[in-house]
Amino acid sequence: MRIFGELQGLYEGDSFRNRLELSQSAVHKPTQAGISGSQNEGADSIIVSGGYEDDEDYGDIIIYTGHGGRDLSSGKQVTDQELVRGNLALAESCKNGLPVRIIRGAHKNSNFAPEEGYRYDGLFRVEDYWKEKGRSDFIVWRFRLRKIEGELKKQSNILQEEQTKYNADNKKTKRIETRVQRIVRDTKLSKKIKERYKYTCQICNTQLETSSGFYAEAAHIKPLGAPHNGPDSEDNLLCLCPNHHVMFDYGGFSILENFDLIGLEGKLTIMNNHKINKEYLKYHLDHFYDEKNR
Amino acid sequence: MRIFGELQGLYEGDSFRNRLELSQSAVHKPTQAGISGSQNEGADSIIVSGGYEDDEDYGDIIIYTGHGGRDLSSGKQVTDQELVRGNLALAESCKNGLPVRIIRGAHKNSNFAPEEGYRYDGLFRVEDYWKEKGRSDFIVWRFRLRKIEGELKKQSNILQEEQTKYNADNKKTKRIETRVQRIVRDTKLSKKIKERYKYTCQICNTQLETSSGFYAEAAHIKPLGAPHNGPDSEDNLLCLCPNHHVMFDYGGFSILENFDLIGLEGKLTIMNNHKINKEYLKYHLDHFYDEKNR
Repeated sequence: MRIFGELQGLYEGDSFRNRLELSQSAVHKPTQAGISGSQNEGADSIIVSGGYEDDEDYGDIIIYTGHGGRDLSSGKQVTDQELVRGNLALAESCKNGLPVRIIRGAHKNSNFAPEEGYRYDGLFRVEDYWKEKGRSDFIVWRFRLRKIEGELKKQSNILQEEQTKYNADNKKTKRIETRVQRIVRDTKLSKKIKERYKYTCQICNTQLETSSGFYAEAAHIKPLGAPHNGPDSEDNLLCLCPNHHVMFDYGGFSILENFDLIGLEGKLTIMNNHKINKEYLKYHLDHFYDEKNR
Repeated sequence: MRIFGELQGLYEGDSFRNRLELSQSAVHKPTQAGISGSQNEGADSIIVSGGYEDDEDYGDIIIYTGHGGRDLSSGKQVTDQELVRGNLALAESCKNGLPVRIIRGAHKNSNFAPEEGYRYDGLFRVEDYWKEKGRSDFIVWRFRLRKIEGELKKQSNILQEEQTKYNADNKKTKRIETRVQRIVRDTKLSKKIKERYKYTCQICNTQLETSSGFYAEAAHIKPLGAPHNGPDSEDNLLCLCPNHHVMFDYGGFSILENFDLIGLEGKLTIMNNHKINKEYLKYHLDHFYDEKNR
């Protein structure tokens, strides 16, 4: 059975001499693969050893490169990576908010690697996944992982704290384990774009009704946040229903420069005075949409 | 113009002698109403003065009772409240993640009230809204507000910190103001229920496709979290697409005991071996669905 999250007796900072030790302790079972997981269950642990030329380690944030397409002796990328096997497992962990154990291996080019052997560095969450041309000009799949601690740990615990607090009067406490699966962020311009479209989805023209009026979400075409760093501007925003927002963010469809959809039938609905920057559409198409899996 | 969030020169803990001072300083403009806002823009500030018999103040969490239906002299509830005016404004703030300025007024029954006059106590977020029978047996609308600080402030700032961190190498920093609009929480059983339904929505039978397979959300019928305290058990879980999850949580529809939908056409799809607790359906219908607005 694949165990996600913490393991009994395992503490952050624990050291392991080699892959065999890691495997036997069940911290990271495969002795060769960097990603432990299956596409149905998700990924439970990864090794960050700087083996991939495209990995980037910022301590609490890791931009991790998926596996495949690499020459084993040189470590160079020699063909495109695909969203299969371990890569698909990490994407599954992303969509379900599963925690991933991070093990760092010794590597001279990383400020965060141990001096020798392997070190368990705690739980991270896969926040986002996308593809891009790596340094060797082949497609690689990338995953932004963020350490679960401080704000994120608290975020997951809000519900627990609250129930405990609220029930203090009644002398009963209930704790329910929760993990965050998806956070919809609003920005300054979000409400403006939603109002302009009267909360109608630009893909399916649905207006979602609630007891207090309509609901829609504002989606950034080129995402906010590193490494995409899309702007919060109207030419980078769409008004979408939650379903099409999820599909758009997770590469279920994209939008061509003539506003035809790809991956879905139809065309983007656009108001006359809403100028969309086609560079951002191209960015989304190149990084999030994956034709191979269709 | 209605200003949401912080005001220049206003600091947490600032005192005001009376409603007129609060109004003139633009902290809370109306001199009578407890809720400042409009149904289109949302609510920008509220006064928590313990005037309503159903208000509950836990410091960082406030269960606030909406307005209407109250006898002004006794403060007793004499008719049902409706989801209109200020109540609708607070619901709008909930759906859009807008911050609400909280002003507490002196009140002998509250541990958190100032000794005299009014005190500005910072920004809160409306996390949830629902209706219930209040102490006087009339329907009241209730709003759970949570202070934006610590985890929540950090949560909103994640994007900013990250961009700053990530770009440190490139000597450029970009900050984009974000606020959290909606958090989807996963629990232990979430994945199980989604797998059982093969990521197919029990309302519309849609399977949302992404570049890495299907996506669905697990919805608790009787919500987790105070004061509902629904359990994380299969008889309280549904597999929904994000659209129907949003509509369900925000009272756009509900489910009758015979599994017919109300507020939407159709019937809930249920697997043979999935027992749903009808008490939880009744709880949702009573607390979240609002027939009057249809």
